[in-house]
Amino acid sequence: MKKTSLLTVLFLTGLVSFGQTPDEKNIKSIYKSALTNSKCYTWLEYLSNDIGSRLSGSTNAAEAVQYTKNQLESIGLDRVYLQEVMVPHWVRGEKETAYILDNKTKTVVPITALGGSIATPKTGITAEVIEVQGIKELNDLGAKVKGKIVFFNRPMDPENVETFKSYGGCVDQRYAGAKEAAKFGAVGTIVRSMNLRLDDFPHTGVQSYGDLPKSEYIPTAAISTNGAELLSKSLKQNPTLKFYFKQSCEQLPDVLSHNVIGEMKGTEHPENIMIVGGHLDSWDLADGSHDDGAGVVQSMEVVRILKNLGYKPKNTIRVVLFMNEENGGKGGAMYEEMAQKNKENHIFALESDSGGFSPRGFSFETDDDNFKKIESYKGLFEPYLIHSFVKGHSGSDIGHLTSTKPLVKAGLKPDSQRYFDYHHAANDKFDAINKRELELGAATMASLVYLIDQNGILTK
Amino acid sequence: MKKTSLLTVLFLTGLVSFGQTPDEKNIKSIYKSALTNSKCYTWLEYLSNDIGSRLSGSTNAAEAVQYTKNQLESIGLDRVYLQEVMVPHWVRGEKETAYILDNKTKTVVPITALGGSIATPKTGITAEVIEVQGIKELNDLGAKVKGKIVFFNRPMDPENVETFKSYGGCVDQRYAGAKEAAKFGAVGTIVRSMNLRLDDFPHTGVQSYGDLPKSEYIPTAAISTNGAELLSKSLKQNPTLKFYFKQSCEQLPDVLSHNVIGEMKGTEHPENIMIVGGHLDSWDLADGSHDDGAGVVQSMEVVRILKNLGYKPKNTIRVVLFMNEENGGKGGAMYEEMAQKNKENHIFALESDSGGFSPRGFSFETDDDNFKKIESYKGLFEPYLIHSFVKGHSGSDIGHLTSTKPLVKAGLKPDSQRYFDYHHAANDKFDAINKRELELGAATMASLVYLIDQNGILTK
Repeated sequence: MKKTSLLTVLFLTGLVSFGQTPDEKNIKSIYKSALTNSKCYTWLEYLSNDIGSRLSGSTNAAEAVQYTKNQLESIGLDRVYLQEVMVPHWVRGEKETAYILDNKTKTVVPITALGGSIATPKTGITAEVIEVQGIKELNDLGAKVKGKIVFFNRPMDPENVETFKSYGGCVDQRYAGAKEAAKFGAVGTIVRSMNLRLDDFPHTGVQSYGDLPKSEYIPTAAISTNGAELLSKSLKQNPTLKFYFKQSCEQLPDVLSHNVIGEMKGTEHPENIMIVGGHLDSWDLADGSHDDGAGVVQSMEVVRILKNLGYKPKNTIRVVLFMNEENGGKGGAMYEEMAQKNKENHIFALESDSGGFSPRGFSFETDDDNFKKIESYKGLFEPYLIHSFVKGHSGSDIGHLTSTKPLVKAGLKPDSQRYFDYHHAANDKFDAINKRELELGAATMASLVYLIDQNGILTK
Repeated sequence: MKKTSLLTVLFLTGLVSFGQTPDEKNIKSIYKSALTNSKCYTWLEYLSNDIGSRLSGSTNAAEAVQYTKNQLESIGLDRVYLQEVMVPHWVRGEKETAYILDNKTKTVVPITALGGSIATPKTGITAEVIEVQGIKELNDLGAKVKGKIVFFNRPMDPENVETFKSYGGCVDQRYAGAKEAAKFGAVGTIVRSMNLRLDDFPHTGVQSYGDLPKSEYIPTAAISTNGAELLSKSLKQNPTLKFYFKQSCEQLPDVLSHNVIGEMKGTEHPENIMIVGGHLDSWDLADGSHDDGAGVVQSMEVVRILKNLGYKPKNTIRVVLFMNEENGGKGGAMYEEMAQKNKENHIFALESDSGGFSPRGFSFETDDDNFKKIESYKGLFEPYLIHSFVKGHSGSDIGHLTSTKPLVKAGLKPDSQRYFDYHHAANDKFDAINKRELELGAATMASLVYLIDQNGILTK
């Protein structure tokens, strides 16, 4: 008897005892399967090293759709299919260049265009710089920024233990800085990278011009944290220094792309749908192993583990690999549109989009009663060092799901200390992933999916 | 008023309120100091990149003694001093070479001599190989290994979530494999590296010939996990293949070295001593940033934080940087010898020697009553994501402390998933350290030291 088939039998018949409850036994089998028999690391290696970066609309993104569809088919799910969605197609063009021009000294600094930005003129932009700590300070300055480059330099707050909190406290500069500065006649904006570490990687990310007329758009880029420190220091010495930057990015027509969906059909309540997912697209600077290759392969691993252990879900369990989380969220929106059209009843949605680091727990969007019910499962996770069940943001893709209620949403919470070292930067690569940490995340997700499937949610 | 002085005042007068208890406020100040104002990362950078590897008896180890003494003096402690200790002086000599000789095909594989091993003859050793899964299988084979190289290939068990458990389940092969194989006339041993990952780094570590007569010593080395997989596979195809290895390591006469000690004198019970420490020595293959540069600088950071916040300890708080943990434990033994001689009364000892990763909790060696008392502090650590207070091994250096009882011993427990990727290998370098994770570990240690200092231990 092969090891796998033996496990399956034990799983189904509950023959493994040693005083463990069925839930304890089954969760143990899930972690064992992930740590000794996983496919997620191999899948991620292919996504990262063979396909590479997967910005929406790129050929790599299309290749990732086909690859993950094929892999899900190979697991033997009940149904694997694609869901069509039109996505934005922004391209970076040539590598950006930038330097500080202090009297006659040029000091090159690393920048990267923000997603959705327009290009500079072909000859670039040269202008004086006004440093601000945020949009409020910009508003106070008002017309004084006219003709200048606005440099948003508020750093992520190192004091927060939760690094996502520090990100949330800063990211408005990146998302809306250009739009706000353009209103006062600035010619461009440079934003300090969302990175707690001092290094030379500029971090891209989406920005929006909002309802600004196209004629008023200004180019915007992120500068590395070391570059930001240097620029700030140089400005203190010479407030009239100039900054030069050049980028040739471009918004092309939308492209047809896809969400990838795989399903294990429910045996008792096939009409109740539970989803687990991550996003297939990444930024273009690296292969996006943490953001969100990890979440993609962990979600695939959840159904692989359950399938492999011979688990027959009560409810329909769906893995959803969303397209275009990074710069549009069109995949998440389309998934919800189709769910509404098909009158689907979702009871649970779980997203992994916080990196492939050691899992610490989950963040839940749900009512108090369901949260209380789920908190009662916490003890089952203790042997696996999972300790943090909190209320909070679940995930942006599943954020679109609003048509059925009550719906319990959850996000995997991995250790967050290193996440912003890599987020949206050229070092978010496969070698930054630890196989065991990735597997433990998948096992933690599969265990929660199992428990919710077994016990349902409160619908009152 | 400078930020630091303001903090100190707030710390002492308890003016920061917001409904927090004094313990909550003080722990918050500790974490803030670590995350915004630390020196540990800079210290580690110097230890790792300017000094480098620090094997006992080396000039680098001596340089590290002077450097850390100087740095402790710069903090303004009440007393900083060295404690003399004679340490073993083993040197690796030339880089080792090894290959699999399969018919006429030579395949080079990465090996590293185990600490304390003898050299091979200058021309190396060539012999047939017998693979075993451990010492028990070796004993079963007995005289069949005569004239052969014994290849210990039991891998670390991937199923354990706690990687130290898997290490404990394997390390006897490395520590005692050569001694046991020599008894049956083997000519050498090759041991699979203690590494959960498949890669090309051989991991060294201490081994012992026990009470074997010197004339019966045989050379022993570790092979990388990829090398072990290849050797095992090749043996299955050709059981009579040969293995060649050559190493020129040597045990030189013992050398005078030092523990480095710094002290904040207790204001109420100066006779009660609390220590916090790590070990200054490292293996020679890399700069030992995780093992145990991290523990050294975190221990120094604990007293820097307390000193910087103006904290006046009730008991004497001592930072102890032990020499020679890796291959002899002479520093720990000497510290205890002097503690006995000076009739010192230790009440608490904390060691950090499990890497500079995100802290998860502590492992305690203590009686039930003290453990229960300390467990009551757990809630204070929750905002910092510290969740695991367990009974278990504390640390090898403080393991020597046995003269005063009751004595509470504790070891910092960082996330352990990546530890054995680096442990005793050439990649245990500064770039494998994350500044925030290192700082969080130091803050977690300082918070426990603060709580034990405030509340004492139960002496019954």
